Amino acid sequence: MIHTRANGPVAKCIAVPKPSVSKSIATVAALGATATTIACYNSLSPAKEVECEGSNPTKKMSRAVEADGKLRLQGLTDDSPIRLRMEAYVKKLQEQITSELEKVDGQAKFKKDQWVRAEGGDGISMVLQDGKVFEKAGVAVSVVYGMLPPAAVAQMRSQHPNIKASSTESVPFFATGISCVIHPHNPNAPTVHFNYRYFELEDENGGEPLSWWFGGGCDLTPTILYEEDAVHFHKVIKEACDKHDPRYYRDFKKWCDDYFYISHRGERRGIGGIFFDDLEDKSVDELFSYVQSCGNAFVHQYVPIMERRKNMKFTKEDKHWQQLRRGRYVEFNLVHDRGTKFGLLTPGARIESIMMSMPLTARWEYMHEPDVKAHGKLMEVLKAPRDWIPL
Amino acid sequence: MIHTRANGPVAKCIAVPKPSVSKSIATVAALGATATTIACYNSLSPAKEVECEGSNPTKKMSRAVEADGKLRLQGLTDDSPIRLRMEAYVKKLQEQITSELEKVDGQAKFKKDQWVRAEGGDGISMVLQDGKVFEKAGVAVSVVYGMLPPAAVAQMRSQHPNIKASSTESVPFFATGISCVIHPHNPNAPTVHFNYRYFELEDENGGEPLSWWFGGGCDLTPTILYEEDAVHFHKVIKEACDKHDPRYYRDFKKWCDDYFYISHRGERRGIGGIFFDDLEDKSVDELFSYVQSCGNAFVHQYVPIMERRKNMKFTKEDKHWQQLRRGRYVEFNLVHDRGTKFGLLTPGARIESIMMSMPLTARWEYMHEPDVKAHGKLMEVLKAPRDWIPL
Repeated sequence: MIHTRANGPVAKCIAVPKPSVSKSIATVAALGATATTIACYNSLSPAKEVECEGSNPTKKMSRAVEADGKLRLQGLTDDSPIRLRMEAYVKKLQEQITSELEKVDGQAKFKKDQWVRAEGGDGISMVLQDGKVFEKAGVAVSVVYGMLPPAAVAQMRSQHPNIKASSTESVPFFATGISCVIHPHNPNAPTVHFNYRYFELEDENGGEPLSWWFGGGCDLTPTILYEEDAVHFHKVIKEACDKHDPRYYRDFKKWCDDYFYISHRGERRGIGGIFFDDLEDKSVDELFSYVQSCGNAFVHQYVPIMERRKNMKFTKEDKHWQQLRRGRYVEFNLVHDRGTKFGLLTPGARIESIMMSMPLTARWEYMHEPDVKAHGKLMEVLKAPRDWIPL
Repeated sequence: MIHTRANGPVAKCIAVPKPSVSKSIATVAALGATATTIACYNSLSPAKEVECEGSNPTKKMSRAVEADGKLRLQGLTDDSPIRLRMEAYVKKLQEQITSELEKVDGQAKFKKDQWVRAEGGDGISMVLQDGKVFEKAGVAVSVVYGMLPPAAVAQMRSQHPNIKASSTESVPFFATGISCVIHPHNPNAPTVHFNYRYFELEDENGGEPLSWWFGGGCDLTPTILYEEDAVHFHKVIKEACDKHDPRYYRDFKKWCDDYFYISHRGERRGIGGIFFDDLEDKSVDELFSYVQSCGNAFVHQYVPIMERRKNMKFTKEDKHWQQLRRGRYVEFNLVHDRGTKFGLLTPGARIESIMMSMPLTARWEYMHEPDVKAHGKLMEVLKAPRDWIPL
């Protein structure tokens, strides 16, 4: 299914087979729960601006959309701009991961929802619902061309002092990324999330980007704690990190524990993983390579765990406990996650993409006390994050 | 079960049979989802302040706690301060309502959770879970004595210009209220919520309150729309309003439609009711009488609807639709409701009391489209609120 905005012109470079009547913006929020940066900028470029004439930044943005469209048609090489290589990478990764997950499920197939942004960019959401193994699995990619207002540029400068942009004009930007949330049926099998993204602030004259950075991470949320699963999940992503920088795993593991914190419960949402943002401490090629290592690691992090857990027997009590933990997942997403919160309060955001991360079902009981014998150890590591492998 | 804070002294006037190890503050958040005003002030008076000596406002607060304690022991009359009469009223109303709801359920009983606030005040949460008719029903009352910091007083002055308080010192306050959320099992039976509350800013020298006001409201959230239920719910509360002011129903009905708006979905959470805050446009006795009319109306608003719906047959599809609508209820509470949001982000708030309003179970499906034939009319009135009775 392909959507486009019904109320705006469609950038020439993008084919739109069947414009639907959907008014939703093909949103960056599709990048998922932690794609804060991108989610923030999605609704900042009203379609009408694309129609403006002259040499203003908006016009430059639509020229960039066209120029990138031509480059895509010509075919990408190792010399193509990183933004296009990252876009191609996340789209290919989406295909690989959904194909691997379909094998794990063994029955259900992902449904593909595709759309085009009138102002430039597109997105693909792939969702598998009520499968044999997976209760709900979503993998989404987005590409967004937009305009960043002066105030947002100024705020961004505090994180990225090297941005050289006028403080009175909007600046064109590009953002792309992949995000994924998977909730299995079996309470022995953990929920998982990952998200990797790239952001670029464009030079109006078509030169090098004024600024760029990568963000992302992965985290595992077990209902029933298997320490070997936690160790495996961390081990694989640590290996990916270590290939690029010995400090990355240590720093980003801590950042992850800090980010996925349900403060009103005094618990982390899971046993962690890594989280990073505004990453620009190496060359763009080196960091693109790092992010690919992370993205490629995902299947190796998660599939072996699923193979071990998906057919395990479980009790009614296990399922009940899972449903209560799903409730905590909802609480984190709706109350604390910056990307989700911002997305939901942003007029025009594509709500279905933002809500893709929600579990199919969840439960809240008044004054529920966890069974200490069964779940005391999990609760302990949620309250005090553990170093699953030596740092 | 009676809790108290383990880490603070207990005000002398309040008996604490068995201090538990719970560190949670006996919170105003117990007042429920829309008790914004009170929830905001609950954690503003750390226990250690109660120990301060001298003639500072905190000391005055603990004197007020003691003085009110004596008045309670002597027994209340029509001349007692409104705060104590309101407190007695909400506690009596809680007993009446829970007793009526137990009759409707015919099987399950409410469990009582009671606590005492070290700084002054107490609370009772009554919850019925997994009954025959009710999936989850909570009725809570709270009484809070606290200190309002100068910045909060200044902000309050914008709504209540008659506040005469120093702009450099904290000011003692009193707050009490009742809140209730009921989720029935049967999808033909609607979820309901109400909340009535009273707030007072104290004169340090024991004179008349510097300021006071009432707030509250009620709203109905059907899964399956029965127009006669909506009309009945509104009719009964309109009659209660009309006895006190011909404008109240019209104004507060609109306020309710505006408040319970899930902006990211473009829907109201239900078919409305009334909502009001900062109400001080008549004498305190007249408004206390108004709020009692509203509180007393609740059983007449809701029980006849439950009697009609609780035993109706329903399909798997009806239950499925109910679970999706429960998801929207969760979204409103966690994303939009000011009281809940503030409560969850307030360190030390009693989370179980805040989360009492959550349904037992909820569901989220990607790209779910409502069955227009079955639920089109409900979706229509959620998108464009209807005047159920002539205004």
